[in-house]
Amino acid sequence: MSTFFTPGPAALFPTVQSHYMEAFRLNLGSISHRSAAFRKIYQHADEQLRELFALPKSHAVLFTGSATEVWERIIMNTVEHESFHLVNGSFSKKFFDFAKDLHKYANSMHKPFGEGFDASEVEVPEYAELICCTANETSSGVQMKASEIHKIKKANKNKFVAVDMVSSAPYPNLDFSLVDSAFFSVQKSFGMPAGLGVWFANEAMLEKSERMKKHEGIVGTYHSLPSLWENYKNFETPETPNVMAIYVLGKVAEDFNRIGVENIRKETDKKAKALYDFAKKSDNFEIFVENENHRSATVVVLNCKEGSSKVINTIKERSDMIIGAGYGKLKETQIRIANFPAVNMDQVQALITELGSL
Amino acid sequence: MSTFFTPGPAALFPTVQSHYMEAFRLNLGSISHRSAAFRKIYQHADEQLRELFALPKSHAVLFTGSATEVWERIIMNTVEHESFHLVNGSFSKKFFDFAKDLHKYANSMHKPFGEGFDASEVEVPEYAELICCTANETSSGVQMKASEIHKIKKANKNKFVAVDMVSSAPYPNLDFSLVDSAFFSVQKSFGMPAGLGVWFANEAMLEKSERMKKHEGIVGTYHSLPSLWENYKNFETPETPNVMAIYVLGKVAEDFNRIGVENIRKETDKKAKALYDFAKKSDNFEIFVENENHRSATVVVLNCKEGSSKVINTIKERSDMIIGAGYGKLKETQIRIANFPAVNMDQVQALITELGSL
Repeated sequence: MSTFFTPGPAALFPTVQSHYMEAFRLNLGSISHRSAAFRKIYQHADEQLRELFALPKSHAVLFTGSATEVWERIIMNTVEHESFHLVNGSFSKKFFDFAKDLHKYANSMHKPFGEGFDASEVEVPEYAELICCTANETSSGVQMKASEIHKIKKANKNKFVAVDMVSSAPYPNLDFSLVDSAFFSVQKSFGMPAGLGVWFANEAMLEKSERMKKHEGIVGTYHSLPSLWENYKNFETPETPNVMAIYVLGKVAEDFNRIGVENIRKETDKKAKALYDFAKKSDNFEIFVENENHRSATVVVLNCKEGSSKVINTIKERSDMIIGAGYGKLKETQIRIANFPAVNMDQVQALITELGSL
Repeated sequence: MSTFFTPGPAALFPTVQSHYMEAFRLNLGSISHRSAAFRKIYQHADEQLRELFALPKSHAVLFTGSATEVWERIIMNTVEHESFHLVNGSFSKKFFDFAKDLHKYANSMHKPFGEGFDASEVEVPEYAELICCTANETSSGVQMKASEIHKIKKANKNKFVAVDMVSSAPYPNLDFSLVDSAFFSVQKSFGMPAGLGVWFANEAMLEKSERMKKHEGIVGTYHSLPSLWENYKNFETPETPNVMAIYVLGKVAEDFNRIGVENIRKETDKKAKALYDFAKKSDNFEIFVENENHRSATVVVLNCKEGSSKVINTIKERSDMIIGAGYGKLKETQIRIANFPAVNMDQVQALITELGSL
């Protein structure tokens, strides 16, 4: 049985397959999304996610097809003219590109691949309506700490702050009184098959979207914030959603709550430390992200002295462990190791042993 | 084990659960959507759907989160100013509403609930760019015959024709030299859990979208036609898609091809005839759609003399068969029976026996 350390799609969380089996047993592929049975499933996911993320009542739990979709929806629904993007990798750049594709005036601050942002150096343009932060740049293994994101909101209270937490949720300990919106997809830290995006958005965003719509703005159709929210009030969705995935997400969030989010965070830190400590001592690997504060806890990126493909192939052949290649141009020289809840300390240690024996 | 005659989500096709089991065995929840393994899965689905629908090379096979999403995408990508909608039920009306939400000039021809369209009575406005037909109105059980849709294209060759075949595919025998686009979702006739939309679109639509984009039109971001198509050339998707569902769809399409689409159509006709023949003779039920040419083969709608909830509950209690209620205002007076490939003649006969014994 392969062990996946790939940064997404990633290893399935150990309980996921049996939750899917139960979903089939319960006929969740056939029930109506306008039934009480579905509303109960949505409500359960909502409750478990609220507990896991300490999400206040001001925020709704909405479902899309992917986190990529949320990039588009959040810009369409909350940016009338200007957005602002902290760009330091391929995914934060895509978020920025989406704003331009939607004909918004997209401001940005750029950092080289492998570098991160601190609040003190960020200057937000006066007319920006939405500040887009990436809690974890999956492409480069750079994180932006929750505390830095909070500082940005404190200094810009009249603007929305959105956090892409695709490859880190529920690791970042976000204070949702200082974060208007956050989103992720289920195939990363939640260890589920892809096909569902999760979008937290607050009432202030809903109000903005409603105002934009009233004043002839185009905020989309079924997945506009007003449409999603109106359905959410009854624990329904505008379209027939990925019912099984919503069920399984609720169950995995329940599993996470049973472990405790603080334990998940501590365990993530411990596993990350083991990986980075290994790389520090290694002759074959080097930590890519130099600034320790910006180093991701959930996606560890290492430079390989002798190319990545040999490392990846050897590890796969020897021990059936699958690790990720570097992203884009760095495919040949870097490896990326996902440090999600689905892999435990023993598996990380086994990987370290293999990497050390190359 | 319940038998679902609900019009969507519907009964799972008998092979679906084992295809999902195989997907788990193959680690399809963890593989990269940029891998050769994924491209092979996409290509397989593409080939099987092409065979099933006799889809020419001019058309691409694209994936979205739902058919609802396609309503939005097709309008954003192919309508610069004006669309035209044949509206005769709740779903064709939503398609029409989406065009208005996107600030297009949406023309329409309306028919009362339960009535359908023939080509000869349809007058398409001169400046309409896209003609939206619904092959099967799930809400009312009204179909528009493929031959009538073809006639509309023949009379309007300079306009796009799009066919919503959500609750009928692959039953309608569309000639794709006369249909620019068609789409469906997998939780109806394909008998799969929801969470995937399938969109066929041709090169002329792609070119239109590219022209609109070039001339400052907003055609969306990751799911614009140019973006979907560019990725499709490599059998990839812009975002991480519902990989498992794409795999299972390819497998179900393969199962359908093994049966043969003509056999599926004949069997559908036979089962529909049995249901309608029963209703004709029944004292308790009455066929809702009066015009036989407009009567749906895939969603049979019957008026209940003594209310629908008693019928639905009795059938469920006696024999664990689940039938759908009427849509919207007709919930209390009608039943809807899905006649998809997942239910066979024996099951339909068993349902008829139960309905007859009320």
